[in-house]
Amino acid sequence: MKALQYRTIGAAPEVVEIETPEPGPGQVRLKVTAAGVCHSDSFIMSLPEDQYIYGLPLTLGHEGAGVVDKLGEGVTGVEVGTAVAVYGPQGCGRCYMCAQGKENYCERAAELGIAPPGLGSPGAMAEYMIVDDARHLVPLGDLDPVQNVSLTDAGLTPYHAIKGSLDKLVPGSVAVVIGAGGLGHVGIQILRAITPATVVALDLAEDKLELAKEVGAHHAFLSNDDAVEPVRALTGGRGVAAVFDFVGAQPTMELGAKMVAVAGDQVNVGVGSGTLPVGMLDRPYESSVRAPYWGYRHELFEVLNLARTGAVHVETEVFSLDDAPKAYEKLHDGTLRGRAVIVP
Amino acid sequence: MKALQYRTIGAAPEVVEIETPEPGPGQVRLKVTAAGVCHSDSFIMSLPEDQYIYGLPLTLGHEGAGVVDKLGEGVTGVEVGTAVAVYGPQGCGRCYMCAQGKENYCERAAELGIAPPGLGSPGAMAEYMIVDDARHLVPLGDLDPVQNVSLTDAGLTPYHAIKGSLDKLVPGSVAVVIGAGGLGHVGIQILRAITPATVVALDLAEDKLELAKEVGAHHAFLSNDDAVEPVRALTGGRGVAAVFDFVGAQPTMELGAKMVAVAGDQVNVGVGSGTLPVGMLDRPYESSVRAPYWGYRHELFEVLNLARTGAVHVETEVFSLDDAPKAYEKLHDGTLRGRAVIVP
Amino acid sequence: MKALQYRTIGAAPEVVEIETPEPGPGQVRLKVTAAGVCHSDSFIMSLPEDQYIYGLPLTLGHEGAGVVDKLGEGVTGVEVGTAVAVYGPQGCGRCYMCAQGKENYCERAAELGIAPPGLGSPGAMAEYMIVDDARHLVPLGDLDPVQNVSLTDAGLTPYHAIKGSLDKLVPGSVAVVIGAGGLGHVGIQILRAITPATVVALDLAEDKLELAKEVGAHHAFLSNDDAVEPVRALTGGRGVAAVFDFVGAQPTMELGAKMVAVAGDQVNVGVGSGTLPVGMLDRPYESSVRAPYWGYRHELFEVLNLARTGAVHVETEVFSLDDAPKAYEKLHDGTLRGRAVIVP
Amino acid sequence: MKALQYRTIGAAPEVVEIETPEPGPGQVRLKVTAAGVCHSDSFIMSLPEDQYIYGLPLTLGHEGAGVVDKLGEGVTGVEVGTAVAVYGPQGCGRCYMCAQGKENYCERAAELGIAPPGLGSPGAMAEYMIVDDARHLVPLGDLDPVQNVSLTDAGLTPYHAIKGSLDKLVPGSVAVVIGAGGLGHVGIQILRAITPATVVALDLAEDKLELAKEVGAHHAFLSNDDAVEPVRALTGGRGVAAVFDFVGAQPTMELGAKMVAVAGDQVNVGVGSGTLPVGMLDRPYESSVRAPYWGYRHELFEVLNLARTGAVHVETEVFSLDDAPKAYEKLHDGTLRGRAVIVP
Repeated sequence: MKALQYRTIGAAPEVVEIETPEPGPGQVRLKVTAAGVCHSDSFIMSLPEDQYIYGLPLTLGHEGAGVVDKLGEGVTGVEVGTAVAVYGPQGCGRCYMCAQGKENYCERAAELGIAPPGLGSPGAMAEYMIVDDARHLVPLGDLDPVQNVSLTDAGLTPYHAIKGSLDKLVPGSVAVVIGAGGLGHVGIQILRAITPATVVALDLAEDKLELAKEVGAHHAFLSNDDAVEPVRALTGGRGVAAVFDFVGAQPTMELGAKMVAVAGDQVNVGVGSGTLPVGMLDRPYESSVRAPYWGYRHELFEVLNLARTGAVHVETEVFSLDDAPKAYEKLHDGTLRGRAVIVP
Repeated sequence: MKALQYRTIGAAPEVVEIETPEPGPGQVRLKVTAAGVCHSDSFIMSLPEDQYIYGLPLTLGHEGAGVVDKLGEGVTGVEVGTAVAVYGPQGCGRCYMCAQGKENYCERAAELGIAPPGLGSPGAMAEYMIVDDARHLVPLGDLDPVQNVSLTDAGLTPYHAIKGSLDKLVPGSVAVVIGAGGLGHVGIQILRAITPATVVALDLAEDKLELAKEVGAHHAFLSNDDAVEPVRALTGGRGVAAVFDFVGAQPTMELGAKMVAVAGDQVNVGVGSGTLPVGMLDRPYESSVRAPYWGYRHELFEVLNLARTGAVHVETEVFSLDDAPKAYEKLHDGTLRGRAVIVP
Repeated sequence: MKALQYRTIGAAPEVVEIETPEPGPGQVRLKVTAAGVCHSDSFIMSLPEDQYIYGLPLTLGHEGAGVVDKLGEGVTGVEVGTAVAVYGPQGCGRCYMCAQGKENYCERAAELGIAPPGLGSPGAMAEYMIVDDARHLVPLGDLDPVQNVSLTDAGLTPYHAIKGSLDKLVPGSVAVVIGAGGLGHVGIQILRAITPATVVALDLAEDKLELAKEVGAHHAFLSNDDAVEPVRALTGGRGVAAVFDFVGAQPTMELGAKMVAVAGDQVNVGVGSGTLPVGMLDRPYESSVRAPYWGYRHELFEVLNLARTGAVHVETEVFSLDDAPKAYEKLHDGTLRGRAVIVP
Repeated sequence: MKALQYRTIGAAPEVVEIETPEPGPGQVRLKVTAAGVCHSDSFIMSLPEDQYIYGLPLTLGHEGAGVVDKLGEGVTGVEVGTAVAVYGPQGCGRCYMCAQGKENYCERAAELGIAPPGLGSPGAMAEYMIVDDARHLVPLGDLDPVQNVSLTDAGLTPYHAIKGSLDKLVPGSVAVVIGAGGLGHVGIQILRAITPATVVALDLAEDKLELAKEVGAHHAFLSNDDAVEPVRALTGGRGVAAVFDFVGAQPTMELGAKMVAVAGDQVNVGVGSGTLPVGMLDRPYESSVRAPYWGYRHELFEVLNLARTGAVHVETEVFSLDDAPKAYEKLHDGTLRGRAVIVP
């Protein structure tokens, strides 16, 4: 089968022909219908040899959807032909965290060598992929796999971040989204769908601010210090109940800190290199800072349900597997609108 | 000043001339700008003498809005001329419940003889009203008092009921509203504004089903056993996450019981006379039944904030104080659309 | 191997010799170290033929502990020799409920024919048992299996019931446990361990009231109407924040209803035949009634952790597999103190 | 009457004779029965003139208890002779925050010039004190005022901090208290009373570690890097669910950061000058940092209820009003065990 692999440190990913994998006992093979392209892939491929932690070659793709194609021995209750999305941040399934569906925080993943598809294990950018356990498959039903595959990360990650601040986002509150790109433009829609908060988007690019408004942001401002005053005014002076920073760079974290309310949340989702000095007296009382990672297993059901009711829609640009390297080029050049999706 | 008073058991309320009250120490006098007409008023006036528990004459009106007109001694931090809504279910302000804003469940109200305006104390259907403590005033700001006065009960009551089931109303869940009248049509809007649930309205009247859809219900069915199957189908067979019964009659409670999901909530808001037999084995596991009353003090801020963003709008029909008895007649005859509001 | 089976409707269970089972792909075989005896077993065996829903013969035992003995194909990350407890209310592992660890409320168990060990599938009262998936095994570590096996039901069930009311059990609140038997005496300990509530036990038997006090109840009363006044006095007149009814009979449910507070919870755990009429005006505002079933997967970790710190201890009486029928006799006669445990 | 006042920047507080105050409309006068001595007083009196923000003279004492002595006009429902504790972090009582009892985060306190007694307004270190509104009085009942007055700050502050992390403190979790002094030794007791967590105390002084164990800490270690390994071992390698840092200095914050778990909380209570750099990749996923201030109004009821059941006890050393300056000297010298209380 064809697969997109990262094979040489520093080089571009390559389309190669490899053997079609067979599902072992308990495993499921999918015929891949869609795979999402993500900044994290680029991030990994930008790492120098001494920081790169995965093996080579690595079949890319941690956002995956497919159709159940073949069942390993002992797999029951799953039907060949079912359309599914793949839950990516897979854990052991048995520890205290996994027992709650918090597989993204599995206590034993490192010890057992468990890695998400595309981020250590063979990913979804191939004609077929193996999923270790059927519990990682969430039924798609009538949802279009190409339109929705990105929700497995670009939807699940902001959803989880927002759920963690849900009790702050009461009527009258203001939520700020910094960075209206792949994750941010979905985050805006999720905020609109599951909270009554007034949603404000901040970005450096005017076209991203346009996109933000199109997908539901009540207000959008250029992401700099000039935004502080109008945003605080929208809060009646109270400050922002929750800042979701999908960039995580030094300037965005500092900007967020200037807006957050007493008992507000500053949530860093973007894998930037920013660092916020947090002390007792230099921030509003009880405001918190945290940096969640991906999302819970059951939250993927919830995100897909939002797509089902039309509340969340991902902007996508589609590429064939052969053209997948081009998708990464466009991602790198910042010329994608929304999310690139590979259709093998 | 003019006031609408219930003066004789069994008779209609009368417009009378009474002395304009003066605020005592700690009290605030409002010039009333609007007062809502509610089924509870009719209910009280329908009680025979041996069940009627309030004094006579009783100035009606437990939904009130006004402008701060005069301050009693010792009142500070409130400005004459401020437009406000009145929080109705007033408590002592000091007990454990009141300390949390749960004045509707005050531990000492009965003992201290505290009663809501219009439900024991002189109400809002007058040119002026006295409010015992400035903490019961919630700023209206730019909100139109006539359009929004009903939110103090017809908004706050469904809001509180819905908040109590908020964690059940995840993406993919279904909420059912039984009775799309004064409270129900606001409840539908609140559900749409603060949850991602699919909202289903049930009512006996076609025009109420129309109203339900206009204000945001995704689906609407006649309220009878024929609704059970299509509603369960909408839930994928799981059952309804939360049923809000604004009628509370025997048939509506039984209908709700046929729809509720495992771990779902059946919430009785309507003051009907229905009774549900609840045992261990005859209901879905962990489904609950409860009957809340009115709402918390801070929740009134939240409801008004929903109106502020346009998420909630009350259908109103306006009457002068002189015509107030007619409003009760129309309420009794079921010919009101939405809520009647008296403007003194 | 030897097993205790229910073979003939209406007859006593029998010790029989059957073939030692082999684990299929994905399954795990345990060498059983302990199996708990429960009222539900007796209940099932008391059902007439037209109400009995399981197959025959049925190897009993839904409370099980063992040592991992043999792994089916494809099972990784589990070591032979590990001591474990078995999570009983097993679900499909993949639906929305199971994804959260709420396998007791699995959406597909009925459809897929999944049944708990001892309650449809072969149970723990045998020398060996098969567990369908390693995720149902919770590590025991140093915990004694005989002393703690009952926690898989008699601990998990009250724990889950109490967790559902945790936010009501603030300092100053009162919790009532009705029935200080197998589940109740563990419930009392859990309440003491995870809440600051004052714990009151009600029972018909003086020796159970003694046991209740020994394991931590602050107060204990005979379970009848004379208890209402002293219990309400302990609450300062407010009423009880949460009543946990481990009997569920008509008199206990009615007794609970006389004590519960505004916004309090009445939680029916016991599989009695009681039925409570629940209306709008006949109960304290916002008090709720619910009947949960067993518990969540991750909650079993939490219960075992309580045993680990010594916070929870089960009274046990030990029987050999050959003597297992005697254990059921004593259970039936009410002459057990605490919980009977079979050691094969 | 006699009062302890801070009169000259940089000087010690002085016992002076001032006029006994009269309660205005809505106010209540207390005959003070006890007043607690707190580090914050010393902190304020250590500020140079350009940083000192309160007026002079300032009657000290933000922890106060008394007996209702005289009612201002319009005060009803309060009886002269009632023993009460004073809720310190007083707000306007009417804003959205105050409506929930979160007066410590009042939105209008600064604007309206509202300040806690002893921290801007005349405090409790006097024979009489004025309380602006009866809602700030929480009934003491039979509780000894001298033994319990410190709970109004030294109890309420840790209680509020712990409540904010309650959902993390499940069975099997570990909580760390850094600093087993006035607040810390109460925090340990609160953790034991309202959570099942294993409690670990860290302090620089051996006698504080002794005190920590006496009041319920399961383990106690010297507060330095050698503690990291044994504490992590107690958590089974997972890390600490919640660190309560009652010091807030650079070394304690850094120490806490080395221990906290994935999704754990680092809670800074102590008014130290430490600052933690918080980024995306340098801390466990979803671990949070926050710094709460004092506590909610209803939480004071809850703290006093813990004292009522004997779950919380403050170590106190008693001084007369004349000897109050000595109490501050001993506080400064670190020779107090527990909390100093002034009895006028």
